[in-house]
Amino acid sequence: MRIRKKKWVQPYLEQETKYLLKENLKGQFKEKYNAEQLILEVGMGMGDFLTALAATNPNNLYIGLEKDETCVAKAIMKAHELGLENLIIIKANAQDIKEIFAEGEVDMMYLQFSDPWPKKGHFKRRLTYKTFLENYDYILKTKGQIFFKTDNQSLYCFSLPSMTSYGFKMLEMSLNYHADEIHYPLTGYEAKFIELGMPIYYALFEKE
Amino acid sequence: MRIRKKKWVQPYLEQETKYLLKENLKGQFKEKYNAEQLILEVGMGMGDFLTALAATNPNNLYIGLEKDETCVAKAIMKAHELGLENLIIIKANAQDIKEIFAEGEVDMMYLQFSDPWPKKGHFKRRLTYKTFLENYDYILKTKGQIFFKTDNQSLYCFSLPSMTSYGFKMLEMSLNYHADEIHYPLTGYEAKFIELGMPIYYALFEKE
Repeated sequence: MRIRKKKWVQPYLEQETKYLLKENLKGQFKEKYNAEQLILEVGMGMGDFLTALAATNPNNLYIGLEKDETCVAKAIMKAHELGLENLIIIKANAQDIKEIFAEGEVDMMYLQFSDPWPKKGHFKRRLTYKTFLENYDYILKTKGQIFFKTDNQSLYCFSLPSMTSYGFKMLEMSLNYHADEIHYPLTGYEAKFIELGMPIYYALFEKE
Repeated sequence: MRIRKKKWVQPYLEQETKYLLKENLKGQFKEKYNAEQLILEVGMGMGDFLTALAATNPNNLYIGLEKDETCVAKAIMKAHELGLENLIIIKANAQDIKEIFAEGEVDMMYLQFSDPWPKKGHFKRRLTYKTFLENYDYILKTKGQIFFKTDNQSLYCFSLPSMTSYGFKMLEMSLNYHADEIHYPLTGYEAKFIELGMPIYYALFEKE
C-alpha cells in the first residue's frame, strides 16, 4: 500500500520501542517471544488484518513486514490500541527477508492484496515472482503454508502458475472466497471490496 | 454431455464406416493417417469444436472421445457435412484411454466443459480427478499440453489444484478467456455461455 508520507511519521517511528523491530532477531524470534508459531504477513499495509489476528491467538507471534513508513506507523498505533504482546512490525522490503529470518523459521505466511504491478515490464516486482518465491521457500518450514488473496484477476492469474511452477503445492483455491460466509479478519482493502460486492480470489499453497 | 437417447442413433452408428473407430489402432493412429500431430478431445460432446478445428488443420489428426451415443452420432454427421479426412470419433469412456492410445502417442489434449459432478461424493467422477490424470499422463508425450476450459467455478477450483498437485505444470490461466477477443472455434456450450455474457475459465497445462 502506498499513501502520502506524513511529517509526524519519522519522529513517531524513532521513539517507538515496543512494536518496531530495531535489532537483529534472526533465528531467535519464537524463543524470545515464547511463541508456538511464527506467522508472517508480507506487505501488511496498515495492519488491520494482522493486529486483529494477533489479538485472537496469543500463543503465536505475528510479524508484519511493510516498506511504507506511514503504513508502519499506523499499524503500530493499532497494536498499541489493542495492547498486543505478540506482534512485531518490521519496516523492510520483501526481497530482504532472508536477512531477517533464518531458514525454516516461519510457520505460515500471508500475502494479501499486494501491488499487482499491472504493466507487463513490471512483472518482476510482483510479490509472487520467482525471485520472491525463492525467499519465501527459504524462510518457510517444510509444510509451511502461504495464504494468498487478491482482488486483482491479472495478479491472480500470474501468481497461481508462478507459485505452482516454482514448486509450491496448491492445496485449494476459490474465485469468491467470501461467497458463503465472510472470513474474518479482513484487510482494509478487503472490507471495501466486499462492500462493493467484488469477489476476492484466494489460494492456499504449501511448501513440500 | 447427456442428451436423450434417440431411436435412429444405434442403426446410424452401426452403418457408419468413415468416422467411427471400430478397430484397434493403438500406437498406429498417426502413421495410418499420415498426421503430424494427434490432437485428442476427451468429452467431445456433439463435436462443434473438434470438427471446426479439424477443418482448419489438415496436417493433424483429431480424435474425439465421447461416451454418449447420440452425441457421437451428431458429431459424425457434422464430420460428414464438412467432408473431413483427419477426424476419428471414438465411443468410449475416459477411463479406458490407456487401452485406446499407446504411451506418449497423443500430442495435445482438450478437456472442455466436462460434467462438473457438483456433489461432494462424486468428485472421483470429475475428469480432472487423479485417476483420470494418470491416464492423460500416460498417453501424452513429454511437453504435451492439456487445454482446459469450463464455465463452472467449482470444477475449475477443483481442477487447478488437482492438475498441479499431480505434476502437470500450469503454463497459464484466465478467469475470462474471451475477454479481449473470442477465441474460435467454440464448443456448443461455450457459444451459449458467451451469448449470456458468462465468463469462461481457462488453464493450460504441460506434461513435464
